[in-house]
Amino acid sequence: MSKSNILQQLKGMSNKQMIELCAKIRKQIIDTVSTNGGHLASNLGMVEATVALHKVFNSPNDKIIFDVGHQSYAHKIITGREDSFSTLRQFGGISGFPNRAESEHDILNEGHSGTSISAAIGIAEANKLQGKDNYTIAVIGDGSLTNGMVYEALNNASNKDLKLIILVNDNEMSISKNVGGLHNYFSKLRVSKRYFIFKRRIKKGFSWIPLLGKPLTRLSAHIKNATRRIFVKDNFFEELGLEYLGPIDGNNIKRLVQVLEEAKTRRGCTVVHIRTKKGLGYEYAENEPDKYHGIGKFDIENGCVLSTDESFSCHMGKKLTEMAENDEKICAITAAMCDGTGLAPFYEKYPERLFDVGIAEEHAVTFASGLSVSGMKPVVALYSTFAQRTYDQMLHDVAIQRLPMTLLLDRCGLVGGDGITHQGIFDYPLFSAIPNAYIYSPVSYGELDYCLERAIEDDNFDIIRYPKGKENLYTPFKNMVVDEKNLISYSENINEAKKVIISYGRITALANEVAGELGDCAVIKLIRIFPLDFEKLGELLDGKELIYVLEESYKYGGVGEKIIANVKTQAKTYNHAIEAFVEHGELNDLYNFCGFTKDNIINNINSL
Amino acid sequence: MSKSNILQQLKGMSNKQMIELCAKIRKQIIDTVSTNGGHLASNLGMVEATVALHKVFNSPNDKIIFDVGHQSYAHKIITGREDSFSTLRQFGGISGFPNRAESEHDILNEGHSGTSISAAIGIAEANKLQGKDNYTIAVIGDGSLTNGMVYEALNNASNKDLKLIILVNDNEMSISKNVGGLHNYFSKLRVSKRYFIFKRRIKKGFSWIPLLGKPLTRLSAHIKNATRRIFVKDNFFEELGLEYLGPIDGNNIKRLVQVLEEAKTRRGCTVVHIRTKKGLGYEYAENEPDKYHGIGKFDIENGCVLSTDESFSCHMGKKLTEMAENDEKICAITAAMCDGTGLAPFYEKYPERLFDVGIAEEHAVTFASGLSVSGMKPVVALYSTFAQRTYDQMLHDVAIQRLPMTLLLDRCGLVGGDGITHQGIFDYPLFSAIPNAYIYSPVSYGELDYCLERAIEDDNFDIIRYPKGKENLYTPFKNMVVDEKNLISYSENINEAKKVIISYGRITALANEVAGELGDCAVIKLIRIFPLDFEKLGELLDGKELIYVLEESYKYGGVGEKIIANVKTQAKTYNHAIEAFVEHGELNDLYNFCGFTKDNIINNINSL
Repeated sequence: MSKSNILQQLKGMSNKQMIELCAKIRKQIIDTVSTNGGHLASNLGMVEATVALHKVFNSPNDKIIFDVGHQSYAHKIITGREDSFSTLRQFGGISGFPNRAESEHDILNEGHSGTSISAAIGIAEANKLQGKDNYTIAVIGDGSLTNGMVYEALNNASNKDLKLIILVNDNEMSISKNVGGLHNYFSKLRVSKRYFIFKRRIKKGFSWIPLLGKPLTRLSAHIKNATRRIFVKDNFFEELGLEYLGPIDGNNIKRLVQVLEEAKTRRGCTVVHIRTKKGLGYEYAENEPDKYHGIGKFDIENGCVLSTDESFSCHMGKKLTEMAENDEKICAITAAMCDGTGLAPFYEKYPERLFDVGIAEEHAVTFASGLSVSGMKPVVALYSTFAQRTYDQMLHDVAIQRLPMTLLLDRCGLVGGDGITHQGIFDYPLFSAIPNAYIYSPVSYGELDYCLERAIEDDNFDIIRYPKGKENLYTPFKNMVVDEKNLISYSENINEAKKVIISYGRITALANEVAGELGDCAVIKLIRIFPLDFEKLGELLDGKELIYVLEESYKYGGVGEKIIANVKTQAKTYNHAIEAFVEHGELNDLYNFCGFTKDNIINNINSL
Repeated sequence: MSKSNILQQLKGMSNKQMIELCAKIRKQIIDTVSTNGGHLASNLGMVEATVALHKVFNSPNDKIIFDVGHQSYAHKIITGREDSFSTLRQFGGISGFPNRAESEHDILNEGHSGTSISAAIGIAEANKLQGKDNYTIAVIGDGSLTNGMVYEALNNASNKDLKLIILVNDNEMSISKNVGGLHNYFSKLRVSKRYFIFKRRIKKGFSWIPLLGKPLTRLSAHIKNATRRIFVKDNFFEELGLEYLGPIDGNNIKRLVQVLEEAKTRRGCTVVHIRTKKGLGYEYAENEPDKYHGIGKFDIENGCVLSTDESFSCHMGKKLTEMAENDEKICAITAAMCDGTGLAPFYEKYPERLFDVGIAEEHAVTFASGLSVSGMKPVVALYSTFAQRTYDQMLHDVAIQRLPMTLLLDRCGLVGGDGITHQGIFDYPLFSAIPNAYIYSPVSYGELDYCLERAIEDDNFDIIRYPKGKENLYTPFKNMVVDEKNLISYSENINEAKKVIISYGRITALANEVAGELGDCAVIKLIRIFPLDFEKLGELLDGKELIYVLEESYKYGGVGEKIIANVKTQAKTYNHAIEAFVEHGELNDLYNFCGFTKDNIINNINSL
């Protein structure tokens, strides 16, 4: 089947042909992810639903928005990217998430949870204002339904005459297990299957009769409303003024096409509730969907993931669990990322002090403020990119209250394959704009331990940021003098050298390499990156000719800007940081892209 | 009744005495707000409920958290602040919102919507872990229920064995009118009154019988579960695994005490749904609760508000309405602040293009991104302080997508009486950390018009920030040369002067005053504040002796830091900006507090 033709051919396919297509797509996904890494289980579950969507709707006139976007692989293969799919997540290749730059079928870049319905309502309202009769479809998993934005959006979709369909993919599993009342609520909906079947029978029962069919179908609406009350309690979606169809088997393509066709006939926003099996078609992923949600390369034959367990996340989880043994006040909070943030051992040992709040970062922080005001020691672990949602809560519910709290930011800096929506490069400008906050950037497990102990003991709002993966990706650090008061370390040649590179976090290793090569160059490595001790830095930098700040973070509002603006110096200054969004790729490719190479930095320094 | 004794005396009061107390509190609120300005209608509606809460619970051991906090006046009067209440919202006086620094009865500073339940769950969990049996009560209005954080929290409160009570104050009115499906849902709950009455009768019917009473009451639980299904559909709170009591008359103190006592007996988190009349006890506020939500001083006799309609908000609303006449693509989006942001005339004329999404800032921005991707020209109007919630949406759903959008930030800079949780001083550090964003700071209505036209016409993500109130609070601007390309203006003496003050927004008037007095001093006024043209600034600043950046905004990540770090200069530099949180007071008091006075700035300059 040739490039870009799947979409066309799909329109004429029989059910049997679609089943074959699904098998083919599924194989391609497994093959590619095993080689490149990526999201596996969520994508495998959604193959049939994606084929059905493209069968029933006309993309890109009808617009399909994937929430989070880690279930869009089949969509990519169907819409012209079958041949290029092997470049998934590689630099210059196909993104692991919908990406506007890649295809007119990718309506928006996605990556964060809970945005799809909001955007879809906007598109549908615009269609209405412009007199277009295209459909807009938001595809959202049950995990994302724990996110507050979804409710803000559902509340707004209510009773609106929009051609909007919300496909709820219910795989009883968000990134880790689903939490809270909504999960129980969905369980109830699932068992009320009789309702939908009954509705369909009524419709089928009359609509084939020519002329009389339609009026009778309309008449039957009254019956349906009555039966609805008997067969199923009114559900929340209906209470909000939305149409509701489901639940149906989301891996049964025939059934999917039927229900989506039915959804098209509804007036108003319609929720279609499908149930899918995460990981379907790959036994290892079916059995352990959590493990195969987002993974590195693996061996198809035996499902073995080709990676190590060692990482900042794992180390943090072990360390915090140890500390919790001696301090009953320590609590850990995660937003559906218990495994990802390394907190699984903590949960194992202290389940009553581990709170997984669902994909609800805002709530996580304010909830932690409540724990703190009552004397507990909350530790909130979030990915840097998702923590962007919590600025207001950190400012309003933690910093203004002067509450002790520890916020751990995982996946800081460039993250690699997940790309533009996931880079952890904005947390520093953001959170250094919070009065009373302290920010630390440990570069080794030892430093992480030190920061963690300090953060939990003191009464400050402490933020500790560390990268994805292991310590010491580059040259190990050596010959550094540590000023413990200011949490600044510097190389032994600080007094002699005329040039100084200031850096923090993972990329300091590169600074060390450069300095080693140049000779007449010292390195200052910051552990505490906010507030900065400008006086101490001023002493260290006194009389230097060149100050080069190297940071794996966004430039504006960054450490370099703060140091150069606040330290009195006659030296030439250069602020080497990230100045734009960065797409996906291997970490080395992204470092290249940002000029974070030894040669480039040496060139920069020599040209100054 | 003497200071701090109301709380004690309340415990022994009869119903009649409590009714008298309510009348007295109500009078004090009306008197004080008429003199000092503040929140009137919401506070008047909540007097009985607040008295009942303090009758039934033991603050501060039992902790009462007020969502948003603009309904906490009665609470303040009851808990020891009767005498000082006349200093409401004045510098050094009583805050208009709960404030930890003020009283042990104010558990957290509040001001932003939707945080109360999250914090209350945290407190209740901490109590449970610490073996304390105190109650935690979150008091939340129906308007706040449109906010997504509330759902994230409710989802987490589900089926938990916590001593947590959520008092939903349903006054059929958030700040402006309530919107969306939740509003309709509440309307349904309101008419299902029979349910609660029936439940009480069953309970009453048996529980007076000694010995036999309790078992029979327990037995009747089965009956209740059955009647529940007959008398009322299961409601959403119950579906989520929460107990639900209500709705009851929230201005009937006897009934309130009964239902709160009943709530104390429940196991698990309990929602108590009360209905109150906003503005109760002051006729003008009862009739126009919207107008009397947050107001300036007014005349008690005739209800006349002593203020003018002229403001940046009003001007913007008129201008945007005019522009919408010639451009059908312009849409306006507000988060429950149609009046506050000046959009009422737009709604009057183009209701189909005005979207009030409820207190849902995150959704507002992502919804607007959907409008934009479909070719509309969305203009989102938010208060600066509430826009803090939308950083992630602006980055992820607007900037990454390179979508044209206009974001209007109202109430930028110091806001006066609303105080610490409402100051608009963080938007610049925050939003200048978004690649592809342009930020403008008009200082007059003329400049606002210019920026608005430019923003709507170009394809950028434009952010326009302006202060509360009118243009030209200080000296008018004169003799300024305008560089239209860079949106920089500067005083005519820029070439001769050795000193330069760089400023933007309202406070530039103060810079002009200072420069006028010093003589040898020029002023550079920035209209576009991000990105900054460092080259042009470098030309203007070449050879100067002193550069003084004056900004009514947070220092770190601010304009001053960016200019000083990026413009090559040998001049002495001084960055005069806000370095900490700022409490409430008249604008003049706050300017004094921040050193924003002519004398202080002249001293600073002379001492350099």
